[in-house]
Amino acid sequence: MLGKRNGKQTVKLKNPPSIVSAACIVGPKEGQGPLRLYFDAIVEDEMWGEKSWERAESKLMRETFAKILNKGAKVATDVNYVIAGDLLNQCIAANFGLRESGVSFFGVYGACSTMAESMSLGAMLIDGEHADNIVCMTSSHFCSAEKQFRFPLELGSQRPPTAQWTVTGSGGVLLGKDGTGPYVTHVTTGKIVDMGIKDANNMGAAMAPAAVDTILRHFKDTGFTPHEYDLILTGDLGKLGKEICSEMLEKEGYPISDRYDDCGVMIFDWEKQDAHAGGSGCGCSASVFAGFIYQEMVKGNLNNVLFVATGALMSPTSTQQGESIPSIAHAVSIRRSLS
Amino acid sequence: MLGKRNGKQTVKLKNPPSIVSAACIVGPKEGQGPLRLYFDAIVEDEMWGEKSWERAESKLMRETFAKILNKGAKVATDVNYVIAGDLLNQCIAANFGLRESGVSFFGVYGACSTMAESMSLGAMLIDGEHADNIVCMTSSHFCSAEKQFRFPLELGSQRPPTAQWTVTGSGGVLLGKDGTGPYVTHVTTGKIVDMGIKDANNMGAAMAPAAVDTILRHFKDTGFTPHEYDLILTGDLGKLGKEICSEMLEKEGYPISDRYDDCGVMIFDWEKQDAHAGGSGCGCSASVFAGFIYQEMVKGNLNNVLFVATGALMSPTSTQQGESIPSIAHAVSIRRSLS
Repeated sequence: MLGKRNGKQTVKLKNPPSIVSAACIVGPKEGQGPLRLYFDAIVEDEMWGEKSWERAESKLMRETFAKILNKGAKVATDVNYVIAGDLLNQCIAANFGLRESGVSFFGVYGACSTMAESMSLGAMLIDGEHADNIVCMTSSHFCSAEKQFRFPLELGSQRPPTAQWTVTGSGGVLLGKDGTGPYVTHVTTGKIVDMGIKDANNMGAAMAPAAVDTILRHFKDTGFTPHEYDLILTGDLGKLGKEICSEMLEKEGYPISDRYDDCGVMIFDWEKQDAHAGGSGCGCSASVFAGFIYQEMVKGNLNNVLFVATGALMSPTSTQQGESIPSIAHAVSIRRSLS
Repeated sequence: MLGKRNGKQTVKLKNPPSIVSAACIVGPKEGQGPLRLYFDAIVEDEMWGEKSWERAESKLMRETFAKILNKGAKVATDVNYVIAGDLLNQCIAANFGLRESGVSFFGVYGACSTMAESMSLGAMLIDGEHADNIVCMTSSHFCSAEKQFRFPLELGSQRPPTAQWTVTGSGGVLLGKDGTGPYVTHVTTGKIVDMGIKDANNMGAAMAPAAVDTILRHFKDTGFTPHEYDLILTGDLGKLGKEICSEMLEKEGYPISDRYDDCGVMIFDWEKQDAHAGGSGCGCSASVFAGFIYQEMVKGNLNNVLFVATGALMSPTSTQQGESIPSIAHAVSIRRSLS
């Protein structure tokens, strides 16, 4: 075991848990994007038959939870914990979406880093023999997020080119003690990084230094180089944040550009979908990971992936009070096989 | 190990971590209450020299974190993780209060159950050999909470007798692999319970069934009876919720009234402080536990305590949309000695 001693931020798991199943459900815009064939379901409209966007987001989470179990051939009583959170105030998408699950629940808040945060905690709890099966999941919703974080949609506010588009979607995984992979082998837990950026329309620039900090720490703790991975995947830095992240890592002596992508860049069609700097929101990295990445790993087209979800830990209140945007990134190392 | 198998919600820890230190800082009203001698510091006014209540709450968290380390004779680089959350939208009290800590950070959201949630995760991570030292903490602030959840303070709104008073305070513990106790021996993680109560001014009634569910599950999983404990302590059910909890458990065959108290009932003087149904907020159970309970355990006046923090998982948005109040309770069993 690598252990957490000597100031290391990375834990090497002794008994790497398997990702037994993964599922995701997304909204109509995401369903028109380049990854559409990888989503388990595409919702026709943002309300999905509910009375409010918040209820629709809870339904996304509830139905995704059911799909994760179904694809893993499990029922709720097989699951020891669900670890979940979202972007809404007081995490109501998760709290209401999972209230009928009947499973012991840990609510987490890591902004858009939530998918990797929940997988980090879930993997360590299984590795430590505290659970056999854990569902880790998250969601976001374009309309509920715009309403809460920015402006009423009805205003039709113009968005600067650096702005990102919150993904409507929920995604998650079932981690299990038993399974045939892919496996979570290392967990690198980020520190809060704040470089003083205050532009809430340029989250990518705020979050990139946190991603760099965690990726560098992962390499230094493990002794790995970028060649250890087929793919290094950040959560939702978007086009600008991705460039910053790549440049900063190259300056540090870790060039990753030949094996680096970002879920926010991947989820929308750059030419046709007018998503500005790319996708964002917890649901972005969750649905790209649970859809495209997981399926490509199972098929054998990807073998070793470093999944680094990134979160901007601000709120409208902190922005109104002139605060900068603290950010965080959590990394999990995932391998198709342990041999 | 009791294990999570067979549908059990309780984990018995193999290597129970020690509560190495505990600290809490509270506001002026809490500092006039019956537990005033147990707090590490009492802030003279709710702003504490900051420009906003939110910044004051972040400062409460930052200074409490420093006190926890100081009392435990540790520095930040000794700590592997900090697990923290609060009630503010996007958990900004924790995110901004701990951004300079330089410690790997897991943000959690369990409403007022956060203190027990963070201790549950922290205890299992140490038990699983993923960390040596973890700080688990939370905060709440009367003014930032009223502003966010209810009405502007300047309105002087009248409060019904069932309303509770959000505690201004931060509290937390340092859990360590090594130490001389008290020890965290069992973790019982709650499910979300929703009995359909919709009155946001009667949180005690909404949360009591969740507390009952978790306490019953703890007894059934472990085979313990209430006599196992000197004290069963709920987080912030307040006067009404406490009565409901006690009555419900008695009907289930587990009478606890001779060894039962609630942090929300304990923190204010019933006759003199006009706190209606009692204290509430994450900072309530955190400061009562880190102050009074911890010190009385160290002195030997309390030996075995079941700490059950309770959270109401609603938001103003969910209440405005006519939703009920889902609730959760997490329990940790704490023993002064393992012999």
